[in-house]
Amino acid sequence: MSEPARIGLLGRGTVGDAFHELVAERASAVEAASGRRPEISGVLRRSEGDFEEILAGSDLIVELIGGLEPARDHVLAALRAGKPVVTANKQLVARHGDELFEAAREAGVQLRFEAAVAGAVPVIRLVQEGLGTIALERISGIVNGTTNFILSEMASTGASYEDALVRAQELGYAEADPTEDVNGADAAAKMAILARLGFHTPVDLDDVPFEGIEGIRTDDISYARDLGLSLKLLGIAERRGAGISVRVFPCFLYRGHPLAPVEGPFNAVTVEGPSITEITMSGPGAGGIETASAVLSDVVSILAGEAPVHSPGRRLEVLRDLDSSFYLHLEVADRPGVLAAIAEVLGRNGISVKSVVQRGTGSDARLVMVTHRAPEADFYAAHEEISRLDFLRAVPRAIRVVEEEFV
Amino acid sequence: MSEPARIGLLGRGTVGDAFHELVAERASAVEAASGRRPEISGVLRRSEGDFEEILAGSDLIVELIGGLEPARDHVLAALRAGKPVVTANKQLVARHGDELFEAAREAGVQLRFEAAVAGAVPVIRLVQEGLGTIALERISGIVNGTTNFILSEMASTGASYEDALVRAQELGYAEADPTEDVNGADAAAKMAILARLGFHTPVDLDDVPFEGIEGIRTDDISYARDLGLSLKLLGIAERRGAGISVRVFPCFLYRGHPLAPVEGPFNAVTVEGPSITEITMSGPGAGGIETASAVLSDVVSILAGEAPVHSPGRRLEVLRDLDSSFYLHLEVADRPGVLAAIAEVLGRNGISVKSVVQRGTGSDARLVMVTHRAPEADFYAAHEEISRLDFLRAVPRAIRVVEEEFV
Repeated sequence: MSEPARIGLLGRGTVGDAFHELVAERASAVEAASGRRPEISGVLRRSEGDFEEILAGSDLIVELIGGLEPARDHVLAALRAGKPVVTANKQLVARHGDELFEAAREAGVQLRFEAAVAGAVPVIRLVQEGLGTIALERISGIVNGTTNFILSEMASTGASYEDALVRAQELGYAEADPTEDVNGADAAAKMAILARLGFHTPVDLDDVPFEGIEGIRTDDISYARDLGLSLKLLGIAERRGAGISVRVFPCFLYRGHPLAPVEGPFNAVTVEGPSITEITMSGPGAGGIETASAVLSDVVSILAGEAPVHSPGRRLEVLRDLDSSFYLHLEVADRPGVLAAIAEVLGRNGISVKSVVQRGTGSDARLVMVTHRAPEADFYAAHEEISRLDFLRAVPRAIRVVEEEFV
Repeated sequence: MSEPARIGLLGRGTVGDAFHELVAERASAVEAASGRRPEISGVLRRSEGDFEEILAGSDLIVELIGGLEPARDHVLAALRAGKPVVTANKQLVARHGDELFEAAREAGVQLRFEAAVAGAVPVIRLVQEGLGTIALERISGIVNGTTNFILSEMASTGASYEDALVRAQELGYAEADPTEDVNGADAAAKMAILARLGFHTPVDLDDVPFEGIEGIRTDDISYARDLGLSLKLLGIAERRGAGISVRVFPCFLYRGHPLAPVEGPFNAVTVEGPSITEITMSGPGAGGIETASAVLSDVVSILAGEAPVHSPGRRLEVLRDLDSSFYLHLEVADRPGVLAAIAEVLGRNGISVKSVVQRGTGSDARLVMVTHRAPEADFYAAHEEISRLDFLRAVPRAIRVVEEEFV
């Protein structure tokens, strides 16, 4: 019989507990697959356990503390001690990826983090290994389950943003403080990780602009549904010439887009490239047991001796000037010449209109438009100009539209 | 500089050509990921090349000949010579899996076959590695792009089966002789492979009953759409007590089923298990370049030194008695007592009805029913009895319905 694989477990919250149980339950299956039987050799809790001692007594470290410190210190110490590390910590990998990968490379050990993005859905494995040498053009993701649940709830029940958020909190899909989820920051961290792996380039989290869903109105969702559009908080990382762009924003997807059917707290990622067309993976984005499963699959990969290369990669320029199509929602006075005036402003700024629907009459009149793709700067110039027109009854609301577009 | 990795390529059809080009194009990326630069050291064509010579001059073999012989002979010879093998040959793996895995295990070399199922979509990697130690309950797949295209075409255009097949042939989605695709045999081979990997058990292709789509009428699709159902050719492999069942049949999926939105020539596979809920992967099912990409990802895994274990696994009993829900389409005389008579037969056989819709009147009257789950033998007994009722104007048509069901 071979030596057991001793796992030092840092953190013992929901995921830590689920991981502890899963290791006991699947020990024989892990041994069959990897040749080594896993056992938890030490656990570091906030109030209990000594990190140095746990590190010395383990063959690999599983970091489930979360947050930047002391997680970063511990992970770096483990890697430098030649111990492979598995972490579920997206903020850590997104913020300190360069430093962590460098440490893993120097020590010649593995750093794995499947659970950091999309829970049990092995999108990291897909992007890093399955498609590791395939040229990718674009990675699109619904990578935050809280916001996808809220938007699905608003669409299916007509609930307001506030009510849908309360519902998400009741069901355990949103934290008591949901800020990082609803403002897009959580999704931005995950997209920075995916972009780094997919394009083999360091990506600084500060290079990823993000917008959240706090300003979304139920109206926008129901109007847009009539146009065949569904609203998602989307992350998009794509090649643009010699550089890349990475960003997160709420946007409308046309029916037929591979991410349009993703509902509720699920996550999904679509990767596109000339030699794969498009591949989509979806599944539960979070949950203790699902996250623990992803951690265990990383542990098995380490025990089986796989060795993904953390090549530093050439730093690609991260661009921010983009073309987009927009949904534009205008509350207007119901009088002749309104549409003509708006169309004039759009036309003068080079924005052409794909569809217009008028809703309501009198003091409830509104125009819902979808534009063709154009430089965002031009669209925002037109938007600014339109918002000053005297017949506008409210600030115009603009939401990007992602057209179905295959490589 | 390290030694190049010499690839012996067997077969030079569409996929072989695409693979040849892809190796040249991605050689540097493969070298960065695996440490070795790939090169094609020999090509075996029908009319050209000597297998023994190519084998001797290569570090690994890529088999793209297709069919059972001489592919089987060559793959076995390569494995026994200690050379890893990548193949895209689903029939070979489904028919001779036991023998091939045994040879790979004895020689201690890898046998990889990502391209055998779902083209570029890495479902083999997902089931074998990503979830290799996770307990799976069910694997459901749309694993034949030809039939999914035909069914999508019938649903969206109202075309007949025959016309949709011609369209598929015109677009290159169906072979001149589409028999193996439309009768379900191709999907059965792929499901046998997935079941083997997902449940760690040998699966004999003869244990996989399959039905095709040749008998599907456009009517069935349009009636069922009103019930919220979409028709797919589905493969299902699932645990049933201590055994498993694996089968392929056309069936209706409720809206909300993760495979319901999969349209056109795409493939998709959903895996379910208690610790992952459900994970779905989808993408193009075939195409030269997509298949070549999958082959290349296997080559990279071999060069990177990964070592999936081909453990023989315990042979699980393959069961055939199952419960199913059915769609039942009855062309009947339009007169009182018809529904009562049919309901009596169903009830006496223990089949309860979930929904009934009457269509048309007079000589065009038809009843469209969906039953609750019941043993298939009971349903078919009722079906047989109903088909003998004197007011039936045609043989009743029955198609299974898969309800959305989470583990």
